[in-house]
Amino acid sequence: MTTLSVFMDVPLAQKLEGSLLKTYKQDSCPNKIFLAFRVCQTSKGQPWVSSVVPKIRLQIAQDPSLNYEYLPVNGMRSFTEAALKLLFGKHNQVIVENRVGGVHIVGDNGAFQLGAQFLKIWRKDSQIVYIISSKKEPYGLVFQDMGFTVREYSFWDSKQLCMDANVLLNVAEQAPHDCIFVIGNICDCNLTQSQWAMLMANLKNKRIFLFFDISNQGLSTGDLEKDTGFLQYFVSQGFEFFCSQSLSKNFGIYDEGVGILVVVALNNELLLCVLSQLMKLTQALWLNPPTTGARIITSILCNPALQEEWKQSLKGLVENIMLIKEKVKEKLRLLGTPGSWDHITDQNGSHSYLGLNIQQVEYLIKKKHIYLPKNSRINFTCINAHNIDYITQSINEAVLSTKGLD
Amino acid sequence: MTTLSVFMDVPLAQKLEGSLLKTYKQDSCPNKIFLAFRVCQTSKGQPWVSSVVPKIRLQIAQDPSLNYEYLPVNGMRSFTEAALKLLFGKHNQVIVENRVGGVHIVGDNGAFQLGAQFLKIWRKDSQIVYIISSKKEPYGLVFQDMGFTVREYSFWDSKQLCMDANVLLNVAEQAPHDCIFVIGNICDCNLTQSQWAMLMANLKNKRIFLFFDISNQGLSTGDLEKDTGFLQYFVSQGFEFFCSQSLSKNFGIYDEGVGILVVVALNNELLLCVLSQLMKLTQALWLNPPTTGARIITSILCNPALQEEWKQSLKGLVENIMLIKEKVKEKLRLLGTPGSWDHITDQNGSHSYLGLNIQQVEYLIKKKHIYLPKNSRINFTCINAHNIDYITQSINEAVLSTKGLD
Repeated sequence: MTTLSVFMDVPLAQKLEGSLLKTYKQDSCPNKIFLAFRVCQTSKGQPWVSSVVPKIRLQIAQDPSLNYEYLPVNGMRSFTEAALKLLFGKHNQVIVENRVGGVHIVGDNGAFQLGAQFLKIWRKDSQIVYIISSKKEPYGLVFQDMGFTVREYSFWDSKQLCMDANVLLNVAEQAPHDCIFVIGNICDCNLTQSQWAMLMANLKNKRIFLFFDISNQGLSTGDLEKDTGFLQYFVSQGFEFFCSQSLSKNFGIYDEGVGILVVVALNNELLLCVLSQLMKLTQALWLNPPTTGARIITSILCNPALQEEWKQSLKGLVENIMLIKEKVKEKLRLLGTPGSWDHITDQNGSHSYLGLNIQQVEYLIKKKHIYLPKNSRINFTCINAHNIDYITQSINEAVLSTKGLD
Repeated sequence: MTTLSVFMDVPLAQKLEGSLLKTYKQDSCPNKIFLAFRVCQTSKGQPWVSSVVPKIRLQIAQDPSLNYEYLPVNGMRSFTEAALKLLFGKHNQVIVENRVGGVHIVGDNGAFQLGAQFLKIWRKDSQIVYIISSKKEPYGLVFQDMGFTVREYSFWDSKQLCMDANVLLNVAEQAPHDCIFVIGNICDCNLTQSQWAMLMANLKNKRIFLFFDISNQGLSTGDLEKDTGFLQYFVSQGFEFFCSQSLSKNFGIYDEGVGILVVVALNNELLLCVLSQLMKLTQALWLNPPTTGARIITSILCNPALQEEWKQSLKGLVENIMLIKEKVKEKLRLLGTPGSWDHITDQNGSHSYLGLNIQQVEYLIKKKHIYLPKNSRINFTCINAHNIDYITQSINEAVLSTKGLD
């Protein structure tokens, strides 16, 4: 008699991502290039790490006084405090009025997992989630798996080749009352005063729940305050919100997935209620968050000299990104590639749209062994002195070869 | 007009634990003692860390070749492989036949969170969970929050003052078909051959889904293989199961909550299906697990000399625990405390039942400022040369003072 497996009804799950990287890895061409790494690369093709991080790692490892006991469920308090100050500025009214708090979370999706669980229970009327961002976000699945209806919109206008704030404005105009908005890099959209006013009026009238995603503070413009300045605006207008604050990318501690679910409430009493419910959920999710990333970041943020060194390293990284973009644009201009390439330098951050169409992307992959996503959003730090000529010449060829096919 | 808060319906959550520690901290008595710390303490009252861990931490921090890129969703492969070999032994048939796998998880509850989510989807008929362990387990809440009916049983017989395997046997006898059994430290129960046979027949006939909890490998008897030997028995009898393997406590890396959700299936094809579904869930839960703990443990397990040093440190810890227990028993004997105290040394591991009743526990807390849980399950490593006399004298007083009240 054969035993029946308890798992016999479980089918193989479809792979959700990574097929581009897989194809790249299987390509035997020596000149192959991958332009879609998630993290910033150094000129040597290594993941970027802020120069201050290895020093702190060593310092922590050499410190015999450190205690490696379990953290409390809400995590490392000094870490959440330092991270909140970084996000809002030390003297922000939500900090002064003691109505902002954070739960130390795990992994890049942790804050969304925790926040979504909370919303599932405490905002029963808010079962539609609008995700408006500059790219396809992995946390769409988090909300979807939990039973929310998810609608996704991109700020990127692939016709006009620019970020379009109107996408957000239109969604806010049409969305039903009491829904949830998850908003990505809104700072890249440059809303006008009247656009802000219109947006906020809709958000307020419809009691839309706001959930911001800040995973790149400082990596957009190189200026930490500028990148999150819009949060101050929401605070000053009396909004409450959640925010996923991830600190992996701007320190170069990718492998720790360190961050916070930030809660802004109207007053301290409300805040404590929300935090207490989040704590209950956290307990079931992972009980205690891991410390390494939080410890490194806290050591840096709580020491003015180290914090300054970190800021300079961020600034250097962003300047380098802009330099690469300028060079790519200039080389395309010199090659006489049809079209304006200003959109490359108009976009902030390491990951930006090249503005190619699907035929051009396929040309690059199939004929030139240059791997990039179908939407042509690439990581510009994958371009360096060794490959820039090959890449720009290939883009030129791709554009010329598909001319008139649009 | 006052703005209504989006959080206005959220009440303060009840605190679920930690009240004993809180009362202890508020006690101003200089002689107060806390006997309920979760982790093993050194003789100096610090959390125990295997001597080999700080060396490896330093080595990792000094290694410029390490890459801190995101881990894949399923985690660090070398870590899961090393951990599975540790759990089953290198030459176990499930490893040779390629039908065991693991997902690198986060936090002490992570494996239960992930496993419960899987069971919720893929074992729709299994909505009753029996948790049978030597203590109240925190993951009861995980299953409960997810909508499972949870029934909890303890191996500890507070009348006979011993671990009683019949608890498990009776539950298996009475449980309905297709339910789920989460089984804690079964190795402490010393089942006889006929008890094993009876248990397994019931588990098999009723298609009960098994979920083992191994959070203390090596910390029970000091012998790694002995502590998990029963798993081999289940394997040899053709069982499939999940297992939460936590490696925080036996390395002393508490603050990283590092572990694996282990899957044993009848064959590789089934295994891959289950792992693929788990990966999908992991992606939503935390996307990428953190590396620090996994990196430390892998470095130790993959180096025979370091592994040996780690094993010796574990053995030393367990010997020390037994020594403390022997001393407590001997001191109670010398004091003439009524009752047999053999149950102290009959139990394995750092955390064991003192076998006091509720009045005696309250006497110790209120009159002697010695803090222990109501069930009198204490962490024996909290007892050291400085406090052993005070503690044993106090136990003696407590027992004498409540004599005849039972």
